[in-house]
Amino acid sequence: MARRVEVSLGSRSYAVHIGNGLLGEIGTLLAPENIGGRCAIISDSTVAPIYGGSAQKGLRESGIDAEILTVPAGENSKSMAVASDLCERLLALGLDRSAFIVALGGGVIGDLAGFVAAIYYRGIPYVQVPTTVLAQVDSSVGGKTGVNARGGKNLIGAFHQPRLVVADTATLRTLPAREYNEGFAEIIKHGAIRDRALLDVLDSGDLPAIIARNVEIKAEIVAADEHETTGLRALLNFGHTIGHAIENAAGYGRFLHGEAISLGLTAACNLSMRLAGLSRAARDLVVAKLSAFQLPTQLGPEITTSAVMTALRRDKKFAGGEVRFVLVPELGTALLSADVTLRDIEHAVEELRSPAQSVS
Amino acid sequence: MARRVEVSLGSRSYAVHIGNGLLGEIGTLLAPENIGGRCAIISDSTVAPIYGGSAQKGLRESGIDAEILTVPAGENSKSMAVASDLCERLLALGLDRSAFIVALGGGVIGDLAGFVAAIYYRGIPYVQVPTTVLAQVDSSVGGKTGVNARGGKNLIGAFHQPRLVVADTATLRTLPAREYNEGFAEIIKHGAIRDRALLDVLDSGDLPAIIARNVEIKAEIVAADEHETTGLRALLNFGHTIGHAIENAAGYGRFLHGEAISLGLTAACNLSMRLAGLSRAARDLVVAKLSAFQLPTQLGPEITTSAVMTALRRDKKFAGGEVRFVLVPELGTALLSADVTLRDIEHAVEELRSPAQSVS
Repeated sequence: MARRVEVSLGSRSYAVHIGNGLLGEIGTLLAPENIGGRCAIISDSTVAPIYGGSAQKGLRESGIDAEILTVPAGENSKSMAVASDLCERLLALGLDRSAFIVALGGGVIGDLAGFVAAIYYRGIPYVQVPTTVLAQVDSSVGGKTGVNARGGKNLIGAFHQPRLVVADTATLRTLPAREYNEGFAEIIKHGAIRDRALLDVLDSGDLPAIIARNVEIKAEIVAADEHETTGLRALLNFGHTIGHAIENAAGYGRFLHGEAISLGLTAACNLSMRLAGLSRAARDLVVAKLSAFQLPTQLGPEITTSAVMTALRRDKKFAGGEVRFVLVPELGTALLSADVTLRDIEHAVEELRSPAQSVS
Repeated sequence: MARRVEVSLGSRSYAVHIGNGLLGEIGTLLAPENIGGRCAIISDSTVAPIYGGSAQKGLRESGIDAEILTVPAGENSKSMAVASDLCERLLALGLDRSAFIVALGGGVIGDLAGFVAAIYYRGIPYVQVPTTVLAQVDSSVGGKTGVNARGGKNLIGAFHQPRLVVADTATLRTLPAREYNEGFAEIIKHGAIRDRALLDVLDSGDLPAIIARNVEIKAEIVAADEHETTGLRALLNFGHTIGHAIENAAGYGRFLHGEAISLGLTAACNLSMRLAGLSRAARDLVVAKLSAFQLPTQLGPEITTSAVMTALRRDKKFAGGEVRFVLVPELGTALLSADVTLRDIEHAVEELRSPAQSVS
């Protein structure tokens, strides 16, 4: 049975449908949206061969003309050059402002295709069809779109909300184990900042229920703070300040995003224990859940602390040089602290060298 | 004495300041905006050497750190590649989401720098400092930003309203005559669709008054239809459907934008006479005003009607293949008509071959 979560954003509200086998029903789900009769499915060289045909068939059965545009799989496609090229290919197909885009793939495709939708003809509608755990629970909801600059990840982009999100949990079954597991870093994060009970059902195997609960959490936060202005949405960055810095310092490709976030969550829990009163048991529970999904919680010597700190200072979240760090005083509750110093963070990175279970 | 026009867009409202010698006061004008302490002035190789220093000095005197980034003058800079490069240069300067951009130049710079502001860190504030007649009366107000695709002009972009517009009419005195004159095509258009009396004061020489009245007209329309959804803003396209097609068919560089629009206005007045009851005297007045500014109202044989029609069919305003054409039944009033056929338009283009004063 399919689940439906509403993202409430006034005139930009949209539904997220979650269920097993929804891909073929995409045309039916789109019918009430009155979204236009022509679209381009933007996908990558890994996902398009597996799911492109089903998506195209589902759309065509509802009378929607759908062409597939493929880009090479991987983070390198998330660039201004590829976005520009996609715009030219859309023009060559004769698609105008009455057309829409379907983003079929993981986070890279969602961010890239969403950005193309944001800038093509100054903005056309798009539909997210996330095919990874990470994209289903996180990046496909919230309207953050963008590409990477040479100077850093996600530094070029736009807020552009999708018109619909279709999360088919059947697509998660073809994910390599490592990519499946990395998605649980964001799920565990959602549990830590917003819903302690979520941490207890991770191994239930009920993917639609788990995904739907995560989408609810994300949707509630996005609805209350669409453009990251009130600070609420910033709570979703729990574990991300240090996680992103490790990801950047390691160089793209060494860690999957979720793996770097797992390290960031471990460090942020340690900081929360020291600075915000998080109990050791709670911190150990988060670390145990991360480990249960084979996610790293310990940092090897090949990535130096100074490299991590250099990357961290370049982070776009450090607007005006001010550090705003998310701490979790107890599981299910998060707060934004201005009291975490760079020195605290450096210590937390250093602490990741020790076996994760025995931090002092 | 400086004039001030308000563009009323709720939380995105902003002021347009118009006056002789305002450039040096830009820092003072920005002070109440609380817009941040660091900016980049984006300008081009023609304008930066003349006005870059004054702008930078004006900003620094108000304690705002301002670096100048220059791109080559001309339409070729309005590309995704240049926008991408500017983002990298902003990153290299260490500017983050607390910074803002100053667009110093004509329409190309306003569109390009505004687009960079729209996508850098998913959107940072920007200030328009238009230095051409065209940019002061048209492109600097309204929040349309963007770059050209290989497949057509302005097809990639975003709506992103400036925080402030500073129009220094002294900068218009250094414009080459042809570029000064082309701006009057948009001014005459504003008169034709919204304010007949404006057509009588064009040769008064009171530039601040003329510019301010045009900004008022544009601001009123933009405030009522920010994203081109109600059809009101589309009235600003009077003369532009055929004008753009001629501009595209001629190849960039042959006509200045305003010159192509002058031809488009002539054709649209002829169509208005035939299909909407515009009087011959009114039509002749518009043509005479265009001619008074040395703007073309007759099309030579080197640009074929079929080339114009091909370009026209590719126009982004033809969403879903539907022609929506602006007609002026009497000077000062415009309407959007769905009754103008491609054949009518073709006839109007053909008619531009005849001496402009003797159309039947």
